Amino acid sequence: MPNYERILVGTAFHTPARDRLEVLEDHAFVLDGAGRISAVLPPDAPGRAALLAEAGAADRLERLPPDAFLIPGLVDLHVHAPQWPQLGKALDAPLEVWLQKYTFPLEARFADPDFARRVYDDLVQTLLDQGTTTAVYFGSVDVEPNLILAEACLRHGQRALVGKVAMDDPAQCPEDYRDARAEAGIAATRDFVLRLREMAQDTGELPLVLPVITPRFIPTCTDALLAGLGALAEELGCHVQTHCSESDWEVGHVHDRLGCTDCAALERFGLLREGTVLAHSNFITEADMGLIREAGSAVAHCPMSNAYFANAVFPLRDALERGVKVGLGTDISGGFSASLFDAARHALMASRLAAAGTDPGLAPELRGPGGAALSTVETFWLATAGGGEALALPLGQFRVGAPFDALVVQANAPGCAFRRFDAEEPLAEVFEKLVLSADRGAIRSVWVDGRLRRGEALRG
Amino acid sequence: MPNYERILVGTAFHTPARDRLEVLEDHAFVLDGAGRISAVLPPDAPGRAALLAEAGAADRLERLPPDAFLIPGLVDLHVHAPQWPQLGKALDAPLEVWLQKYTFPLEARFADPDFARRVYDDLVQTLLDQGTTTAVYFGSVDVEPNLILAEACLRHGQRALVGKVAMDDPAQCPEDYRDARAEAGIAATRDFVLRLREMAQDTGELPLVLPVITPRFIPTCTDALLAGLGALAEELGCHVQTHCSESDWEVGHVHDRLGCTDCAALERFGLLREGTVLAHSNFITEADMGLIREAGSAVAHCPMSNAYFANAVFPLRDALERGVKVGLGTDISGGFSASLFDAARHALMASRLAAAGTDPGLAPELRGPGGAALSTVETFWLATAGGGEALALPLGQFRVGAPFDALVVQANAPGCAFRRFDAEEPLAEVFEKLVLSADRGAIRSVWVDGRLRRGEALRG
Ligand SMILES: [Zn+2]
Ligand SMILES: [Zn+2]
Repeated sequence: MPNYERILVGTAFHTPARDRLEVLEDHAFVLDGAGRISAVLPPDAPGRAALLAEAGAADRLERLPPDAFLIPGLVDLHVHAPQWPQLGKALDAPLEVWLQKYTFPLEARFADPDFARRVYDDLVQTLLDQGTTTAVYFGSVDVEPNLILAEACLRHGQRALVGKVAMDDPAQCPEDYRDARAEAGIAATRDFVLRLREMAQDTGELPLVLPVITPRFIPTCTDALLAGLGALAEELGCHVQTHCSESDWEVGHVHDRLGCTDCAALERFGLLREGTVLAHSNFITEADMGLIREAGSAVAHCPMSNAYFANAVFPLRDALERGVKVGLGTDISGGFSASLFDAARHALMASRLAAAGTDPGLAPELRGPGGAALSTVETFWLATAGGGEALALPLGQFRVGAPFDALVVQANAPGCAFRRFDAEEPLAEVFEKLVLSADRGAIRSVWVDGRLRRGEALRG
Repeated sequence: MPNYERILVGTAFHTPARDRLEVLEDHAFVLDGAGRISAVLPPDAPGRAALLAEAGAADRLERLPPDAFLIPGLVDLHVHAPQWPQLGKALDAPLEVWLQKYTFPLEARFADPDFARRVYDDLVQTLLDQGTTTAVYFGSVDVEPNLILAEACLRHGQRALVGKVAMDDPAQCPEDYRDARAEAGIAATRDFVLRLREMAQDTGELPLVLPVITPRFIPTCTDALLAGLGALAEELGCHVQTHCSESDWEVGHVHDRLGCTDCAALERFGLLREGTVLAHSNFITEADMGLIREAGSAVAHCPMSNAYFANAVFPLRDALERGVKVGLGTDISGGFSASLFDAARHALMASRLAAAGTDPGLAPELRGPGGAALSTVETFWLATAGGGEALALPLGQFRVGAPFDALVVQANAPGCAFRRFDAEEPLAEVFEKLVLSADRGAIRSVWVDGRLRRGEALRG
């Protein structure tokens, strides 16, 4: 019998492959002292009854109530933490105004540690409440507020990758909100990575909070900064994140300056690595997809902000079919929702509109570029296992040895639309309802690293 | 001084015209005994201070707490009430399977009054919790369950239009779920309208629940049924609702059978009237838009279900510019969310994708059909005043003489993403945040017809 700290018994849904739903009906999830899954036992597993009896007697057993289901925690690959106070604001403004009048001045305010503490404490708790067990954060340029963010993640128990934003090109950055020079940006990033690692080290084999090297995007960074951060990623063995081929303007800028695509440039600078997260990537080429796949990098697809800032839909089906790793991002605050469920549903809608086309004045066969739209199962996969794969971390599915990051989602919670009137309803159909209609009101509890972080404990 | 029953004081947002936000800062909303707005008093209105003092002493005054805002209640123009149990389910299935295997058999189950009571009681409460103060319901074919739905609306205090679905064409309807003949469908509709009016009559000048004549859509109805229902609408002075030009298949069917568009046929049958709600209408022509405008009818734009069943985006900008009345529908369960906030945000996303195009492989100028995307203000208007105009009822804005249907929306509610960190933030920006990020968790109370229906009372 496995060594255990706690056992949860109930029905779980997960997607171990992109188009494969697995319904784990009445399974026992055995968690070890480090918060990892040490066994997943089906009802007929030998010795299960005795184990559950023993765990019950030791008050280490929890059973999901009727109509509650376990799912892997949601993985949000793209969040601008300091933009939390402006969620939903100024999106009708042109990009220049959005950046210069709202976004950069707001990000600069986090140099005030009190403001940073207040906002980040709220952000981390709210995202956990929304079911985001892993968040990949762009911080701000200053080092200290990013450490405050990491501290909030550790305190509330959210798994996170946190990045100090690096940007140094005077032509594209505000005078008072940038790294002074490339060397300063590289040194500050190194300092941040080392301090964050020290802060987060003591939480087990896979630290709850990891650093991520974060050049904002090519236009705001000099070649020297980009090359230096690439070398630093290699030296320190870090994740990387940046924005990639987001808009027509951005693609043109990089082409004019470097004579190639974003992906080709990032590869040259050593920034295209396993675990590199490329936000958006709407305009990547076939060759870019090959580069991303070969490098083991991934795309953070952000459907909400794409509709505002990209003016095109990321070629998701094409990328998936070419073996590019893809997960989802809310892109707070380029996107207007903090919920990864919402991001998933907007990805589904964007995929359907891109596949079928939008113009009723055209004949159906001329309307859309075609290709299959996302299925409900694929949509869920993107929000969970796809995000885990993108990060090259064992997240987003229930696997022995993986940390237990999970949500208990309850049908028939008052006010929430995730409903089940019929106990005979096939579980695969209940899963579809959960993916498309569950929201925060249905999330009864949130577990990260095998520990209850939000919501109520269950009963044995 | 006005005669009053109750006075609410606080800051309100509404959109009296499609592109005009009005911020009513610290206004007093004076409600009469019938639940109507009898005055809206700005801070400097003569005599206001004395009136508020008097109302306070009489325990008839409520003040919004800090960071809470009044908005008009949301108007959902298209809900299939008996599809509530399958919200989010089977949407990957082809339309035929969705209808024949899931939808029609489910709707038929409402002939069981216990099932109808249980489901409708939950539906009405959940929609109120989500902020929908007015819902326009498709019921089912049988009369009795639709009266049970109307009763649930009256009991919980939701404003509603309720329709008995009429469908009689044996070629398109299941044998055991349709009106037996055209005459039977017309007689049952008449019976339903009269009984509902009797049930709902005693609630004031504008009854809380109204009947709506509801041919499902042209393909399921014989000419005799359509003509009879048109005559009945005229005779009884009723609202009408139906589905219109939803898909390529449907448009082709009507053209083959009747030699014209849906709108032209509906006009011929007397069904295109003031207050007629046409769901979807994705494929209406320029001439159709003229017919709809002339008749004073309206479109219920349902962006979520359109992505599944229409394969095109409703030409919203064109319709608005031609003076067609438009509001929003969730289209439960062709759409997967019960929230009209979600419907509004999906309308915004669909509008942006349709305007800018979706295919990154095309040059920007070739990518989309162009036209302006929805602004945040217009998005809110669609969800409120646009819906009121569509119904030709005084709903969706704060006007003297109109019933007080309103939500109190609270920033900084735990878990919800509608946030305000800065008391100096301009109210027009707070409005944008509310439109794009508020959800059920931010809805502190729901008022219909001047009475608190859900949530907490405020303090004087
Ligand atoms: Zn971003
Ligand atoms: Zn419908």
